[in-house]
Amino acid sequence: MTAAKKQAFPAHPEVPISKAVRAGDFVFTSAYGPWTFDPAKVTYADDGTVLDDGTDKANRDMPIAEQVHKTFDFVKQALAVAGCTLDDVVSSECWLSDPRDFVVFNAIYKTYFTKDPPVRSIFPMRFMFNCKVEVKVIAYKPLAG
Amino acid sequence: MTAAKKQAFPAHPEVPISKAVRAGDFVFTSAYGPWTFDPAKVTYADDGTVLDDGTDKANRDMPIAEQVHKTFDFVKQALAVAGCTLDDVVSSECWLSDPRDFVVFNAIYKTYFTKDPPVRSIFPMRFMFNCKVEVKVIAYKPLAG
Amino acid sequence: MTAAKKQAFPAHPEVPISKAVRAGDFVFTSAYGPWTFDPAKVTYADDGTVLDDGTDKANRDMPIAEQVHKTFDFVKQALAVAGCTLDDVVSSECWLSDPRDFVVFNAIYKTYFTKDPPVRSIFPMRFMFNCKVEVKVIAYKPLAG
Repeated sequence: MTAAKKQAFPAHPEVPISKAVRAGDFVFTSAYGPWTFDPAKVTYADDGTVLDDGTDKANRDMPIAEQVHKTFDFVKQALAVAGCTLDDVVSSECWLSDPRDFVVFNAIYKTYFTKDPPVRSIFPMRFMFNCKVEVKVIAYKPLAG
Repeated sequence: MTAAKKQAFPAHPEVPISKAVRAGDFVFTSAYGPWTFDPAKVTYADDGTVLDDGTDKANRDMPIAEQVHKTFDFVKQALAVAGCTLDDVVSSECWLSDPRDFVVFNAIYKTYFTKDPPVRSIFPMRFMFNCKVEVKVIAYKPLAG
Repeated sequence: MTAAKKQAFPAHPEVPISKAVRAGDFVFTSAYGPWTFDPAKVTYADDGTVLDDGTDKANRDMPIAEQVHKTFDFVKQALAVAGCTLDDVVSSECWLSDPRDFVVFNAIYKTYFTKDPPVRSIFPMRFMFNCKVEVKVIAYKPLAG
C-alpha cells in the first residue's frame, strides 16, 4: 500500500531542511559536508569568497580524507533516521572544492560502496562554507508491505 | 494502478523542456529563476560572463528578496500544472550567484516550507542568465487510486 | 509487484559507479560527458585547473556539437542497459563549460527530445576533465507487471 504523503525527518528546528524525507519507496537526503555551520556566522571577502565559516578554525585544515569520512558519517546518519543504509543508495551527487582531491575521494568512496554502487555525478564546486566535499544521495527501500 | 508512461507538461513550444513531469507518484519540475530568458539574446564578455541576458535591464538590479519570491512563483506554477503544491515537495536544489545572499534566501525559504521541509542542497553558482537564484524541486503526490 | 532491492548495472570494475540503476519504476544514470577518463591520469595547473585529462589530446579541440552527440550516445547506452530509451526520461541535468555553447547545445538537445521533453536544469560548470558538456538523467519505465 502506497503512503499518501511524504514522511519528513526535520533537522534542527531553526534550519528549514530535513535530514531525510521518505516518499513512497524512496528516501532523499540533504547535501552533507564534513560539519554543519550557521550561515549567519560566515564572513566573506569582498568578492564573496568565504573567509571564515564560523566553525572551529581547525576545520579548514582538516585533510580531505578525514573530511570525506565525516561527510559519509552525516549521510549514513541521515539515511538511518529513515531506515536506510548506504547499500540502499541508488544515486549519488558529489562535489569537491579542489579537483585534485578526486583520486583520494574516489579511493575512500569505493570503501563505502563495495557492491552495486549508485550512479554518480561529481563536480568541482564552491561551497557555502569552508569545506572540501559535499555528498547528497537518493536511496530506494520499499517498506515491508 | 501505476501509470505506464510519464505525463509531461511542456513549456513554450520553442523550448525543449517541460515545466513539470509526473512519473508515477512523483512530480519533477525544471529549474526556475525569477524570470525566463531567450538564450539566443544573451550577450557575453570575452571570458564568457553574461553581460546582458536580453530581458528587461531592470531585472539585473532586482533585490535578492524579490528574486526569491518570483522564483517560488514559477516553482509553484510548475507544481500546480501537475496538481501539486509546495507541501508535496520532498527534495529541493537551490543555487545562489552570491553566497552572501544565503541568510536572506534562507529567511524567505522558511516561509515557503513551514512544516516537514524537503531535503536540500544549496551552492554558489554561475547562471546562464543575469539572475541571483534558481530552484528545482521534486514532489511526491500519489494520484487518488 | 514492487522489487525489494535496487538493480545496479555497474560500469568498469575499477570505477565505483554504475552506468545505470533501476529502483522500482525509475532508472537513474550517472553523469556522462563525451568521453571517459582516468582521474589518476589528469594533470593540473597550480590553481587546480585541468591541464590534460590523460585522454587523446584531440578531445580538447572537439567541437561542442560533436561533444553533445557523444554525450548523448553514452546516456542512451546507460539507459539501454536498464531497458530504457530517451523517451522515458523525465528529468535531465545538463552542464556546459562555456555558457556561450547554450544555443548550439539547445538546438541539438531538441533533436533528442522531440515530444514530451523532460524537466531540466542547465548551468555553466567546471568539470573534472577537459570536456565541454555533461548530462545526467532520470527515466521512468515501470516493468511489465
